[in-house]
Amino acid sequence: MDERAALRLLSDELAAVGDDAAVVDGLVVTTDMLHERTDFPAGTTRYTAGWRAIGASLSDVAAMGAEATAAVAAYAAPRFDRDELLEFIRGAADVCERVGTEYVGGDLDGHEEFTVTTTAIGRTDDPVRRRGATAGDVVCVTGTLGRSAAALEYFERATTSDTADDRLVERANDLFRFAPRIPAGQVLASRATAMMDSSDGLARSLHQLAEASDCGFAIESDRIPIDDSVREVAATDDEALELATTFGEDFELVATLPETALSAVREAADVPVSVIGSVLEPDASITMDGEPLADQGYTH
Amino acid sequence: MDERAALRLLSDELAAVGDDAAVVDGLVVTTDMLHERTDFPAGTTRYTAGWRAIGASLSDVAAMGAEATAAVAAYAAPRFDRDELLEFIRGAADVCERVGTEYVGGDLDGHEEFTVTTTAIGRTDDPVRRRGATAGDVVCVTGTLGRSAAALEYFERATTSDTADDRLVERANDLFRFAPRIPAGQVLASRATAMMDSSDGLARSLHQLAEASDCGFAIESDRIPIDDSVREVAATDDEALELATTFGEDFELVATLPETALSAVREAADVPVSVIGSVLEPDASITMDGEPLADQGYTH
Repeated sequence: MDERAALRLLSDELAAVGDDAAVVDGLVVTTDMLHERTDFPAGTTRYTAGWRAIGASLSDVAAMGAEATAAVAAYAAPRFDRDELLEFIRGAADVCERVGTEYVGGDLDGHEEFTVTTTAIGRTDDPVRRRGATAGDVVCVTGTLGRSAAALEYFERATTSDTADDRLVERANDLFRFAPRIPAGQVLASRATAMMDSSDGLARSLHQLAEASDCGFAIESDRIPIDDSVREVAATDDEALELATTFGEDFELVATLPETALSAVREAADVPVSVIGSVLEPDASITMDGEPLADQGYTH
Repeated sequence: MDERAALRLLSDELAAVGDDAAVVDGLVVTTDMLHERTDFPAGTTRYTAGWRAIGASLSDVAAMGAEATAAVAAYAAPRFDRDELLEFIRGAADVCERVGTEYVGGDLDGHEEFTVTTTAIGRTDDPVRRRGATAGDVVCVTGTLGRSAAALEYFERATTSDTADDRLVERANDLFRFAPRIPAGQVLASRATAMMDSSDGLARSLHQLAEASDCGFAIESDRIPIDDSVREVAATDDEALELATTFGEDFELVATLPETALSAVREAADVPVSVIGSVLEPDASITMDGEPLADQGYTH
């Protein structure tokens, strides 16, 4: 059984599972485990790791349309280096501050691989689910896609270059930190029919929304907001589109809403909200420029 | 820097840290990471692992005197075996049900060592801290101490015996599951001046309470409620006392309260509440039967 099969099993077993966060009693709760080998490429500072790990959980809170209440982390490492730990805490605290919430600490543990589990909690009386997208709605994404893909390329270039290039590492770390879309999520929540974050990549997110909402999507590639950094690292426009669509780990919001709601949402949101296509009837498939869009992406 | 030093650093850095759980906005939040090698001895079923991992976090909620709102787990393993995963979820769900809360799922992740991070959330308007113990108060513990020490001995005997003894393994698993003291914690909360759980062992818990409350303790060994299972595995009474006092991982509550509150607390609590000694003035030390009680126990 692979992780996706196990996750399906979990959602059969537990009614609350299957959205970006569990909802209980007016609270949303989400937890994520990250490992050095798979989630923090060589060159990732502990400050960036703290920011990104906590940010990933806050992104799930944003995807429910909730305000953030608190975040914690369990931090495991082979040894506890004072500066590394302080940097991690500062990154964690800074991303919390960015979205108006509080990092309240956690657990420390000895472990051979640097491993972090973050948990974020939010509040909402009316969570936005993955189900609810309705034919005729527009499909939107916040911000731009592909920053993490570009970051990874910069980390890679920095480690393989003969001379250590601090600017590459710095640029990669900058791209690797992101603003969880808590404020935009709350704005979208008032009108969105369905919402999730793009952590598994846009393509996979669309497939997950389609499965939960029982709908199809018609996406137009030239409306996808590709981050400038992706164009810096991609050899061709096709490669840039591919990275922005399937790489994932971008933590933007993908939402569906009635077209009539669009201008109000755009006016209130603190980031650009791009329309990338429309919601189709239940028996329709998921296409980009009329071609089937594969369920391809990053499975965490 | 060892874990205790790092934890001290964390509590300097973050005002909210330093109790069993962080308190934010009427919520208490606590997170714990557990590993197969250090926390789940050979023979521990996944059902017991799920129960115990979630139970450990619920115990921290209990130690704050809060009601439990929800719990989640991030589950990492080299592979996802359907039965193992279901058993884990059932154990997690059952311990939540035992204390009237809900297991709402979590995250799955590939990792070479079976590793679980649990987070529990509770609510209280008036959390009980580790600071607040006052000279003249009595020191109490809920339930009995030493069950985990006995469990470990049974796990050990089962793996070293020539013939696999299922009854030993079953007994060990029984002892390894525990009822988080959520109801007793809420009863104690109304009158306790200070409280924490005994997960690091009674001796270390007393040192931590003393440090936070600036007090001493006079403990009487013959009043310590030693679990019957400890007497089964210990060769002598001294060994039984040692295991009950320093082994830890028992997840009982250690609380201080005015003697006048005792009968009301005992009447309302669903478990025995044993008086084991009294709180002394700030300049007094921590003694058992008049001898210094070492700060010895299990550091997680």
